[in-house]
Amino acid sequence: MTRFLERIRTQKPLIHNITNVVVTNFTANGLYAAGASPVMANAKEEVEEMASIANALVLNIGTLSSEQVESMIIAGKAANKAGIPVVLDPVGVGATSFRTESARTILEQVNVSAIRGNVGEIANLAGLSAQVRGVDSMGEFDMDELLSMAYKKIQVPLAVTGELDFITDGKEKAVISNGHPLLTKVTGAGCLLSSVVAAFLAVEKDVFHAVTGAVCYYGIAAEEAASKAKLPGDFQIELLNQLYAVSDDLIAEKSRSVLGKLGSDL
Amino acid sequence: MTRFLERIRTQKPLIHNITNVVVTNFTANGLYAAGASPVMANAKEEVEEMASIANALVLNIGTLSSEQVESMIIAGKAANKAGIPVVLDPVGVGATSFRTESARTILEQVNVSAIRGNVGEIANLAGLSAQVRGVDSMGEFDMDELLSMAYKKIQVPLAVTGELDFITDGKEKAVISNGHPLLTKVTGAGCLLSSVVAAFLAVEKDVFHAVTGAVCYYGIAAEEAASKAKLPGDFQIELLNQLYAVSDDLIAEKSRSVLGKLGSDL
Amino acid sequence: MTRFLERIRTQKPLIHNITNVVVTNFTANGLYAAGASPVMANAKEEVEEMASIANALVLNIGTLSSEQVESMIIAGKAANKAGIPVVLDPVGVGATSFRTESARTILEQVNVSAIRGNVGEIANLAGLSAQVRGVDSMGEFDMDELLSMAYKKIQVPLAVTGELDFITDGKEKAVISNGHPLLTKVTGAGCLLSSVVAAFLAVEKDVFHAVTGAVCYYGIAAEEAASKAKLPGDFQIELLNQLYAVSDDLIAEKSRSVLGKLGSDL
Repeated sequence: MTRFLERIRTQKPLIHNITNVVVTNFTANGLYAAGASPVMANAKEEVEEMASIANALVLNIGTLSSEQVESMIIAGKAANKAGIPVVLDPVGVGATSFRTESARTILEQVNVSAIRGNVGEIANLAGLSAQVRGVDSMGEFDMDELLSMAYKKIQVPLAVTGELDFITDGKEKAVISNGHPLLTKVTGAGCLLSSVVAAFLAVEKDVFHAVTGAVCYYGIAAEEAASKAKLPGDFQIELLNQLYAVSDDLIAEKSRSVLGKLGSDL
Repeated sequence: MTRFLERIRTQKPLIHNITNVVVTNFTANGLYAAGASPVMANAKEEVEEMASIANALVLNIGTLSSEQVESMIIAGKAANKAGIPVVLDPVGVGATSFRTESARTILEQVNVSAIRGNVGEIANLAGLSAQVRGVDSMGEFDMDELLSMAYKKIQVPLAVTGELDFITDGKEKAVISNGHPLLTKVTGAGCLLSSVVAAFLAVEKDVFHAVTGAVCYYGIAAEEAASKAKLPGDFQIELLNQLYAVSDDLIAEKSRSVLGKLGSDL
Repeated sequence: MTRFLERIRTQKPLIHNITNVVVTNFTANGLYAAGASPVMANAKEEVEEMASIANALVLNIGTLSSEQVESMIIAGKAANKAGIPVVLDPVGVGATSFRTESARTILEQVNVSAIRGNVGEIANLAGLSAQVRGVDSMGEFDMDELLSMAYKKIQVPLAVTGELDFITDGKEKAVISNGHPLLTKVTGAGCLLSSVVAAFLAVEKDVFHAVTGAVCYYGIAAEEAASKAKLPGDFQIELLNQLYAVSDDLIAEKSRSVLGKLGSDL
């Protein structure tokens, strides 16, 4: 038993988020619910110091500005120097060239521990958007190919989330079927997951298992929430409740992940 | 039957919001609940591209900066070029000269499809604040005069919302009595309505009918929410639930709008 | 009977918040629930005018930028000129030197009416962090010493909130035991309290009694909320409900404050 949540709730890792203005509140409340300590800081005058005292860093490009890119790179380098994990959420990569270029600049300048995005974002980040057109259905076979190709280009552990969630570190692969469609009706559901991934990485050095654990936990919390709340306003609040209520034991009981080698059929 | 919601829920129009930092989350969740796809992007480096792939643009000046005004004008011109509707929400116009001047600059530089505000904002935007002092009671006669005068100055379809809602395109007028006082206890209730108006305009070219439809829908969702939630925290969440649950059929059943010519008693 | 809430709900004071991007929505909804009128404005072009028409100003440094510091000083000076109260919330002071220096610059340039923070923030602001290490347990004796030392350095009425809340104006002291641990699971719970303090100061010139009243009210609302909501998502919403529902009579019935002289055992 890995008991990630117990570790998070005991260690209360400080998660430094440089994130978009839409999800700040929801992300902070979600991190508190999981047991972590959130902090948000964007100014280039302070991100180096803040990242240095944090236990993990999240870079989310959802409402990017050029000043924020600069801060992300300063914070990312400080995180690298301090040896803490860095999660990149490439929100909307491919929608504008500013986002695509900024995400690539961050990847060039910062050693990122893991990237979480939807299939379109990961494909765009890897420069594969032409090849993967139509992959939105996320058929198992295509996704394995996408994961392999994307990992080859990006060389960073990936979590591609959607109806099914796919995680790879270039060798191992996990396919997770926890989760619920109501997550697509709550803004920032993906962004919060990226910050939860950072909280797991803050307490576990094995990136593949930490990311897989975070994605299972989040999907199970969503399932629990959806069993109580059928409408999106209620679901958003109930998700916070369940991120707080779900335990390592419930994860052990309810997780539906299939593990294997990248390139193998699961 | 116009069935606006069915169209929104089928077409999932992408609504690009350049809005204030108070309402970003609530606006995004409200647009998801209505069936649209929200995107927020503020940077001058990307707003032209983002507006070009969107189906409607919202410009909300609630926490304006000079950089944001610049972005709004770039995005507005791109929206005009792409032929997509633009909604202006002149939050707090009249409170500071920066807001008043910025709103007027936007109106000079961008072809706006509709403006939604409260009576004070619309009066200030039209330079009528002196004449309409005391109109806050929104007596029917005074409102008709205000609408006529404001339209004459601004030459853009207007939705003036409050205890009653008034919509005009310079010829037609609608007076809507749907809605609920609890809306005044939720921050961003007006801002979200402006974004919902944009979603309706994204699926219907007839501005007057689209705006009237959006305002009816929103008022009915508020009534449904108030029948379940009596306190403002609950109401805020229940409003999101009801924006999701309300159907075109319920709108047809519950809308209370009176239509006529601008300048006529209704 | 001081009946602060009745005054707030009658006068609806306009509270100008220059605050962090995490708590804008929650702060605005909390102020509405209390009966006040929130406004957020950050741009240096408009903060002087906005502060001049407001009834109180809140400066919260939770996601500071150098532009925002500049705006805070402009707004603070306008508030001083207009004779309205100014509340400083030194979020995260001590975490980075940018925050510490910015908070001190604000205190040098602006006459602040009251400061609300947790024990670490107040100790850092007063340059006492070395002496008070370990005070987090907030033992009564140490807190009295901290309050005396911090007031001597800062010379501004202080509200130090935590498991117990301590208020002093340099002469009087109040210790309040209202409140609930679930407040620590909601982001912005402290930030909103600072804005509620500003609303109380807007209707009551006696700073010590206004701050004490605000902290009691907030703690009682939290207790009422916790009696209905056991999980953090629900609690966040129920706190807004109870800020709306709590009355002056309930405060008179449920407040648990002990008053005395600073330097005395209570």
